[in-house]
Amino acid sequence: MNALVQPLSPEPSETTAGAAFVRQRYRRDDAPAPVAWNDTLQILLDHRSTRAFLPDPLPDGTVETLVAAAQSAPTSSNLQVWSVVAVEDPARKARLAALAGNQKHILEAPLFLLWLIDFDRLTQLSRVDGVASEALDYTETFLLGAVDATLAAQNAVVALESLGLGSVYIGGIRNKPAEVAAELGLPPRAFALFGHSVGRPDPARPSAVKPRLPQASVLHREQHAWSKTHAEAAESYNPRIRDFQREQGMVEKDWTVQARERTRGPSSMAGRHILRDVLNDLGFELR
Amino acid sequence: MNALVQPLSPEPSETTAGAAFVRQRYRRDDAPAPVAWNDTLQILLDHRSTRAFLPDPLPDGTVETLVAAAQSAPTSSNLQVWSVVAVEDPARKARLAALAGNQKHILEAPLFLLWLIDFDRLTQLSRVDGVASEALDYTETFLLGAVDATLAAQNAVVALESLGLGSVYIGGIRNKPAEVAAELGLPPRAFALFGHSVGRPDPARPSAVKPRLPQASVLHREQHAWSKTHAEAAESYNPRIRDFQREQGMVEKDWTVQARERTRGPSSMAGRHILRDVLNDLGFELR
Repeated sequence: MNALVQPLSPEPSETTAGAAFVRQRYRRDDAPAPVAWNDTLQILLDHRSTRAFLPDPLPDGTVETLVAAAQSAPTSSNLQVWSVVAVEDPARKARLAALAGNQKHILEAPLFLLWLIDFDRLTQLSRVDGVASEALDYTETFLLGAVDATLAAQNAVVALESLGLGSVYIGGIRNKPAEVAAELGLPPRAFALFGHSVGRPDPARPSAVKPRLPQASVLHREQHAWSKTHAEAAESYNPRIRDFQREQGMVEKDWTVQARERTRGPSSMAGRHILRDVLNDLGFELR
Repeated sequence: MNALVQPLSPEPSETTAGAAFVRQRYRRDDAPAPVAWNDTLQILLDHRSTRAFLPDPLPDGTVETLVAAAQSAPTSSNLQVWSVVAVEDPARKARLAALAGNQKHILEAPLFLLWLIDFDRLTQLSRVDGVASEALDYTETFLLGAVDATLAAQNAVVALESLGLGSVYIGGIRNKPAEVAAELGLPPRAFALFGHSVGRPDPARPSAVKPRLPQASVLHREQHAWSKTHAEAAESYNPRIRDFQREQGMVEKDWTVQARERTRGPSSMAGRHILRDVLNDLGFELR
């Protein structure tokens, strides 16, 4: 076991510090105090998305360290059906930003990572030996690839935050998946699941910790049981998200309204309602 | 920015320590030394899956701390379309273990988490107000849910490892997704993406760090470019995974052989080739 880990009986002062971070995450005084506390929990609980970056390039070797952390994440059956493209060329970043809805933080950040579901490796290896790899054509295996790529990416997020860097995921690259695949020169059966802008947070434009739904909305015991509490939870959450928005100079809008607008239908999906067809075209049959 | 973070110019002794952890991950002397080093990077790089647990129950409040870490992960458009079921009842764990291919570590671990893609919250909220939530019927939104649930789960893994606990993801619950949904009492549009056994690692049966493919197999610069290097990378990886297997008392088998067996076709998928149909039955149209 890791020699760095903290025992599960912290000093009172540590849990007090930890409790403040949990309260910050929920903006609720009744948020549960942590069972223990350490630097890693603090990095996790204090996460915020960074959308304002300094222009400084990252030190040589940063990407390799993030990828080592990413490859250390679990991967289903050790298949490792993911890869990552590190884009630093300003012109390419600009073209990708345009495809992702012109998010200016993609331009601002020195590094833009694209996390891929990538079956090319296994496809090529099976071709060499003339064996079938028909499982790659199924919805299950595509889903497994999405899980693998996401586990890897999130480890990279924790790693980069431990280094004082900041980042934000860019789901907007799924607005134009075929065009993104062409820009990145992706082979068949590879798909950019999400982008990821990485850099040094600009201290002059700090971001805050976004509050989340109360734990009772997310944590079930033994069986799924809370469908009657949704409205109540959302009602208590709405004023908290509005406080956050106001503090950040954003337009105030209830979470329930945002969520409904975002999930209304094809017109609210920024072009992503055709994703299944595009995935078929990219070589994922999704049987 | 977090006061705990390490500057990007570590002491030489720190990078030396870090380099050893990177070498351990790849089993390669030419693995890139980390750009900096800290406790969090060490926890990430030193990850290993735990399948041998002590029977001790976890301290009260552990699940809540893990869920606070999970909720601190990014979530697409703040939709938070995931939830988690914490199972501790031995009889229910046994039934779930049977559905997941009788993996004994599910029984051994005191806690079995099931990470869900969960659209029930948004479905219920839209029903209350009579608005459409048609976007929930699309492949894109299901994929978004898979990403959200996985980001949350991986934060919980990092958190629990920082606390000296161990865990292993259980993809095997997708062998029988309809039966798992029934056991957990899931409403329509909820799906158990993977299970997760959590407990104290048994020091008498330690696990080791599993080596991964070389970074050149995973990291691209500017464009996807390595399809010709797959065979070479796999050739150098096979002996490393065999060393790991031998040390762990496992059957030795080349990674390339394992990967081909696992992806051969429907017969190698433990029943998961029907996942798309089952997801349709569970309320995900996947348009």
